[in-house]
Amino acid sequence: MFKAVCDAKDFKKIINATSNLVDEICFEVDEEGIKASAMDPSHVALVSLNIPKTVFSEYISGIHDLGIDLEALKKIMARSKSNDTIIMEYDEEKNKLLTTFKNNVTRNFSMALYDISSNNLKVPDIEYPNKVSIKAGAFVEALKDSELVNDHIILSVNSSDNQFVISSKGDLNYSETIFSLSKSETEVVSSEENEGAVESEEVINNVMVEYKVLENSKSTFNLAYLKDITKSTASEDILDIYLGEDMPVKVEYNIGGAKLVFLLAPRIES
Amino acid sequence: MFKAVCDAKDFKKIINATSNLVDEICFEVDEEGIKASAMDPSHVALVSLNIPKTVFSEYISGIHDLGIDLEALKKIMARSKSNDTIIMEYDEEKNKLLTTFKNNVTRNFSMALYDISSNNLKVPDIEYPNKVSIKAGAFVEALKDSELVNDHIILSVNSSDNQFVISSKGDLNYSETIFSLSKSETEVVSSEENEGAVESEEVINNVMVEYKVLENSKSTFNLAYLKDITKSTASEDILDIYLGEDMPVKVEYNIGGAKLVFLLAPRIES
Amino acid sequence: MFKAVCDAKDFKKIINATSNLVDEICFEVDEEGIKASAMDPSHVALVSLNIPKTVFSEYISGIHDLGIDLEALKKIMARSKSNDTIIMEYDEEKNKLLTTFKNNVTRNFSMALYDISSNNLKVPDIEYPNKVSIKAGAFVEALKDSELVNDHIILSVNSSDNQFVISSKGDLNYSETIFSLSKSETEVVSSEENEGAVESEEVINNVMVEYKVLENSKSTFNLAYLKDITKSTASEDILDIYLGEDMPVKVEYNIGGAKLVFLLAPRIES
Repeated sequence: MFKAVCDAKDFKKIINATSNLVDEICFEVDEEGIKASAMDPSHVALVSLNIPKTVFSEYISGIHDLGIDLEALKKIMARSKSNDTIIMEYDEEKNKLLTTFKNNVTRNFSMALYDISSNNLKVPDIEYPNKVSIKAGAFVEALKDSELVNDHIILSVNSSDNQFVISSKGDLNYSETIFSLSKSETEVVSSEENEGAVESEEVINNVMVEYKVLENSKSTFNLAYLKDITKSTASEDILDIYLGEDMPVKVEYNIGGAKLVFLLAPRIES
Repeated sequence: MFKAVCDAKDFKKIINATSNLVDEICFEVDEEGIKASAMDPSHVALVSLNIPKTVFSEYISGIHDLGIDLEALKKIMARSKSNDTIIMEYDEEKNKLLTTFKNNVTRNFSMALYDISSNNLKVPDIEYPNKVSIKAGAFVEALKDSELVNDHIILSVNSSDNQFVISSKGDLNYSETIFSLSKSETEVVSSEENEGAVESEEVINNVMVEYKVLENSKSTFNLAYLKDITKSTASEDILDIYLGEDMPVKVEYNIGGAKLVFLLAPRIES
Repeated sequence: MFKAVCDAKDFKKIINATSNLVDEICFEVDEEGIKASAMDPSHVALVSLNIPKTVFSEYISGIHDLGIDLEALKKIMARSKSNDTIIMEYDEEKNKLLTTFKNNVTRNFSMALYDISSNNLKVPDIEYPNKVSIKAGAFVEALKDSELVNDHIILSVNSSDNQFVISSKGDLNYSETIFSLSKSETEVVSSEENEGAVESEEVINNVMVEYKVLENSKSTFNLAYLKDITKSTASEDILDIYLGEDMPVKVEYNIGGAKLVFLLAPRIES
């Protein structure tokens, strides 16, 4: 038994975000919700997905492993309209996932499930020295800048200058984006003449919303993977980026109550 | 003598709709208007066009057969702007069609005519048991759903359940769109307290506006042809779809007073 | 020493307009501003650029020749946002151009300079008998019309009919756009009853804003080059087009205080 009902918009975005890196994944469903994790075909990146049942307006489930062809499910989701209601059901007998889009017409899709067993992959519980939280739009723009120069980028943080730098170095050319932490400053001017009337609020740079750096780190990553990881984000989504010297970068973000975690191995310079 | 003047917008749409299926066509012009019909190169579909002279703001014509290169005329029409006035004239001496777009500048196009004789193709006068009238946008969406699964689709109507179903069946996957007839219900609540004041009108599903089914039918058609037939429709255009067991499907719609009829042979399952 | 600060929008447009025809160019910078000129690789067209220092909000420069890879600079400029401030600096030691986009984040690009010496190309000081000033949008549309028929177009002016005609002739087909000079007419109706109150202003065709023709001319030009020359114009930009029999066409337009001049050799019919 598996039946889950939700709005089309966020679920479509979740599937898109997951399918950028992996082609197939095992949805481990139980009464708590849907969990899934998989490595990309080159084993450089790991994606982990957690959709708690609270994301759904209706959710009933036993314990099942649903082997999902993500490319096929993405195409089905792409056919949904943003105000559709999605109903997903598991047809145990035929081993198929039935998806219904309900609106003023009813549209049914039946998709064969793969025989993918749960791989018990978990995101390793690493303690990171550094965490940067940043708007997805600005991060994606920095990736596109880097693309002009090289297919690898360097992410670096420095505890002394409070800067998060995304840079790229080619044989001749160079590009970098510098995110500086501007402290939020709200200055309330209040004088005799203007008592309680004037409030001047400085407009602040809120692209980078958190910057906790315990030790400097500088690592090189594959640009194409980072683009895939962030491709489905909206400009105002907040990415939590965890960094450490010679450590994989961990990127986390939420889509409507679901949590996506991506881990990407650094490139070891030879 | 042939001279016809009209607004660019609708005429452009008519030429687009016709050129999706056939490359060349003979415009049989006379004092009543323009008629044309042709089969697609594979002889699976027939398109028939009737543009009465009332569509034009000015129309004078003798009896001529104008052999039109539809691809060329489509490209010329694509150059028109929606507020242009189009003037078409037949240059008998040079056997060319002169097209003028008038706006704040004058743009002239001269196009050589083909030697296509009128083929006297007529849409056969078949009596259909079933007719479904439906918004073009919803029909086109159902075709796109089907595309995920197979390059053929099944159109079926059933007199017992008042449903028009568009479905597609692949080796593993399946998709279907179900259009149900919702009767228009206007419920007028009128009580002592609210005399003449309250009217509650139920919002109704008006995607399928007519459903006349005398006998069940279920036939398979080539999806690409149905896409071509409906490619130039606007979302709110109404398609009249005539169906019968083992009969070609007939699709009719109007563009600004002109009538387009398409006939598509069913696929006989072997 | 070279440092120039400006808004992203116009500078981006200037670089785009220049890079459509040539791949590399020498920016001859001095205290007055930036000058540059180059021929396209086939030596059919010449582009000349003059960006006076008044275009910049800050400008300091010695005399330098900066060999610019226009394709690379165009890609960097494409990364700017319309409200970015651009800071360009010449790193003499490394022979690089440093470009910074400033907004709520700082983005730096370093680009290697080529060893292109100033070629002292100047736009020849030819006296033209004819000048037509016309909105870029209408000119570009006429080029697109011509594209349906041939890859060359004919530009002709005639002192007797006050028309500027852009035409194209294929083996079978023909297209032409006719720009007529409509004199600006402002008719002030002023009668006893409406003294000082009624003013009727005729809406005029202002696509062609100037037409000074001393002698008829008719010349053929390569369509693709004229498209490149006008590709970066906005619809309402005014093109000054200088024409004469057997003379190259000269096209001039301004982008935010900078002046671009293009010269294109006519095609000599064999």
